[in-house]
Amino acid sequence: MSLLPDRERAPDGNDSRGDISPQEMVPSRKNVVLVDGVILNGPATDVKAGEKFVEDACRLIMEEVVLKATDINEKVCEWRPPEELKRLLDLELRDAGEPHHRLLQRCQDVIRYSVKTNHPRFFNQLYAGLDYYSLVARFMTEALNPSVYTYEVSPVFLLVEEAVLKKMIEFIGWKEGDGIFNPGGSVSNMYAMNLARYKYCPDIKEKGLSGLPRLILFTSAECHYSMKKSASFLGIGTENVCFVETDGRGKMIPEELEKHVQEAKKEGAAPFLVCATSGTTVLGAFDPLDEIADICERHGLWLHVDASWGGSALMSRKHRRLLQGIHRADSVAWNPHKMLMAGIQCCAFLVKDKSDLLKRCYSANASYLFQQDKFYDVSYDTGDKSIQCSRRPDAFKFWLAWKALGTLGLEERVNRALALSRYLVEEIKKREGFKLLMEPEYANICFWYIPPSLRQMEEGPEFWAKLHLVAPAIKERMMKKGSLMLGYQPHQGKVNFFRQVVISPQVSREDMDFLLDEIDLLGRDM
Amino acid sequence: MSLLPDRERAPDGNDSRGDISPQEMVPSRKNVVLVDGVILNGPATDVKAGEKFVEDACRLIMEEVVLKATDINEKVCEWRPPEELKRLLDLELRDAGEPHHRLLQRCQDVIRYSVKTNHPRFFNQLYAGLDYYSLVARFMTEALNPSVYTYEVSPVFLLVEEAVLKKMIEFIGWKEGDGIFNPGGSVSNMYAMNLARYKYCPDIKEKGLSGLPRLILFTSAECHYSMKKSASFLGIGTENVCFVETDGRGKMIPEELEKHVQEAKKEGAAPFLVCATSGTTVLGAFDPLDEIADICERHGLWLHVDASWGGSALMSRKHRRLLQGIHRADSVAWNPHKMLMAGIQCCAFLVKDKSDLLKRCYSANASYLFQQDKFYDVSYDTGDKSIQCSRRPDAFKFWLAWKALGTLGLEERVNRALALSRYLVEEIKKREGFKLLMEPEYANICFWYIPPSLRQMEEGPEFWAKLHLVAPAIKERMMKKGSLMLGYQPHQGKVNFFRQVVISPQVSREDMDFLLDEIDLLGRDM
Repeated sequence: MSLLPDRERAPDGNDSRGDISPQEMVPSRKNVVLVDGVILNGPATDVKAGEKFVEDACRLIMEEVVLKATDINEKVCEWRPPEELKRLLDLELRDAGEPHHRLLQRCQDVIRYSVKTNHPRFFNQLYAGLDYYSLVARFMTEALNPSVYTYEVSPVFLLVEEAVLKKMIEFIGWKEGDGIFNPGGSVSNMYAMNLARYKYCPDIKEKGLSGLPRLILFTSAECHYSMKKSASFLGIGTENVCFVETDGRGKMIPEELEKHVQEAKKEGAAPFLVCATSGTTVLGAFDPLDEIADICERHGLWLHVDASWGGSALMSRKHRRLLQGIHRADSVAWNPHKMLMAGIQCCAFLVKDKSDLLKRCYSANASYLFQQDKFYDVSYDTGDKSIQCSRRPDAFKFWLAWKALGTLGLEERVNRALALSRYLVEEIKKREGFKLLMEPEYANICFWYIPPSLRQMEEGPEFWAKLHLVAPAIKERMMKKGSLMLGYQPHQGKVNFFRQVVISPQVSREDMDFLLDEIDLLGRDM
Repeated sequence: MSLLPDRERAPDGNDSRGDISPQEMVPSRKNVVLVDGVILNGPATDVKAGEKFVEDACRLIMEEVVLKATDINEKVCEWRPPEELKRLLDLELRDAGEPHHRLLQRCQDVIRYSVKTNHPRFFNQLYAGLDYYSLVARFMTEALNPSVYTYEVSPVFLLVEEAVLKKMIEFIGWKEGDGIFNPGGSVSNMYAMNLARYKYCPDIKEKGLSGLPRLILFTSAECHYSMKKSASFLGIGTENVCFVETDGRGKMIPEELEKHVQEAKKEGAAPFLVCATSGTTVLGAFDPLDEIADICERHGLWLHVDASWGGSALMSRKHRRLLQGIHRADSVAWNPHKMLMAGIQCCAFLVKDKSDLLKRCYSANASYLFQQDKFYDVSYDTGDKSIQCSRRPDAFKFWLAWKALGTLGLEERVNRALALSRYLVEEIKKREGFKLLMEPEYANICFWYIPPSLRQMEEGPEFWAKLHLVAPAIKERMMKKGSLMLGYQPHQGKVNFFRQVVISPQVSREDMDFLLDEIDLLGRDM
């Protein structure tokens, strides 16, 4: 029995309107070399047709995505429910290829129904906006298709990564350090957890955790959910993540941390790591790093700072005080794809150690890739520090944007985002029907919209139960209208509230006003 | 003391040759709203200048990368040693931004000194060539900048991923299944290891490995090095990876596997996983899946198949027999970015289970992202299956290429690569001074070049010691000349040999002939 699925005929396989078919073509030549029924002379691709397709598609991308990115008259999203969208897109993969005009139509559809994360009124996640320079860098790396592991294959991108890491290390305030770009803040946090564990007990690399005392790590109750994912993935177990209490603003309480560390020791567990957060996901809170570092020093614990979101404040002389004490960390996660708009993903894991700890922890010495008898200095073959084999040149998109804007331009971007946040906060305070959760420290502004029917109600259980339903209902309306996108969530016992995130320099005061007007418009009848 | 590095002045900060400066601009308006010294009216970016830069850069990318990709008269690489390249590129990041003409020059330099992995004579890794359709998809996703976790933010790309996974599952021969695209075959293997462990003992997710019996897994001595990295990262330990002996062609010997499993059990260890390889990295060997599956069934072990490289043979009716038995696997890693040229990275981790094992194993239920009170069917919010938070839409680039070429076009691509490999093998056999390591099963052709001075020598220790030096020396010459790139390595007691990998449909018989001619030309005087 053949396991191969039946080959169906495409309903329109014979379609031809003068289009060039993208099917790979067989050259007609004399002296044909045939092996296994395949003609091997000359290339098999129709290069001209392929190049033409790239040209046409680039024009489409330019017109439909890049030029429309800043146009507030465009919709943020063109909502369709899943089953309807499936029908509209015709996702099925068939035996026969499709002609160019149909492929271009598909590209257009994909653009049409995709959420415009570049749009000045997309505030839904911790990334937004369009940086023209990092976009160009991304186009370049897609065209060059490199993998960053050895200098021989990726000379430019390895050197660029080195330069960017060096500069980020400077901004953290370390004299020297090491690091690696990787696919996400979650993965950075995994790197940290594994590295701290290796430092604690290098034998774990070979022997594993079986038979060892219970390792335990500490982070705040407001930390990113990747802490749990990491502990589970690394074999530590989610129960061995101790979530330290936070204050009313979402910051870890150092005295509680101290208490938990002492308790864990008493219980015979092995504390090895504290993960502080600089810029929590929901509230944008910054843990007090100096006080946490004191505790880590006292107990000999690795201090990792998850600054995936908040790290960008380091670029601003005005706001870097939010991360006061970060130079005392042993490792840092920092994602320039968030507030610095380098494009998803651009995430650095940075380490203070310069004794090759990262390499010793991660290396597997693959002899087919990291040959030691190469003709150049193989210390540039940094791929063995990574948990990946193929790896994208993510540092480059940050590098080109940095070259374009300069440190001062990046600083301005951070300052502006935080000034806009301040403006929004003040507007929320002024407006009837809006209620701030708390004064923000960063670019997350958390607030409730209280519709007219609830404004006179006492803030008792019924009020909160009803308010809980408001944000999801408004979110549905705004997505169906396509006028803006921002997130909502319940959090730490608080009912559903909006989380507005300000990032892009294409956003203005007018967009902040619009945001509040629009929410009011959508929820006024509730 | 400020931790902020000193701001230096760019030596050419005042440069202006009529260029538009990319510095973000302050609009001049009345009724200016100022917060913290920042003007908040209107967008702060010079949109027109940014768009112009993207247009200019796209033209450059088209001319310098896309149109030159298939030109064999271009160099594969423009070799520069690290220190020299650093000087040429001026990597330093400064306070001031740079004008557009300089940025364009930088882009040109980056292209110039980057290795042309698209070039028909780049044979150095398990990826190569240029697929015009996946390239367009990559440009699109870079412009749209999505993150694939929730339907609300990534409606199109989530549905595309579902469609592609479904089709890949069909080709594996499963009736149904689950899966997730992720950043690399190494990461896929980690997913598998953790999932098999979760299946073996779900408590590990919460409790971790401490206090448990020693988990042990089995793979072949020829497996990818990510097996070791994974075991170490996941807290299992590299010593608990049992490397099963292979036969002369690099295939796992099932009888040896059986023996090792029994021994491990006797020693009180807990076997939980066998990782077979379909297409090993160096030799391109395929483990006998049916016989291995029998053993796994007998002992109740999870069978994972690392088909990162060899999985693409499933697209070919002629060659899919190499993976005979793969439908019996519990999970599979398969990278369409390799032979199917979808662009780095495009890697699927596929699971036979359809009872939500993947989600149960990986979920952390972040309430700010995976709200359960959304207005649409939240089963489409698949991001909680992932170890990442932000995740790139890698399935899309494979989807668009598949739409363009059809299953038949992808099949032709595999058939052609393997026919070219056959051709090269026969040529190697015919030519003086070339010696095949073994008959290949797939697109890895491993061979020695024996220079004239060694041709009469007896194959004793001196011969092998001298031969060991030949491949690195030729590699150095070919890179400095820039005429082609292929890899070499010592392997399993064999001295340095070349590994030629054939992938791209832009490669022809003429390139195979050139390869052998060129190696002979470069090594003739040795």
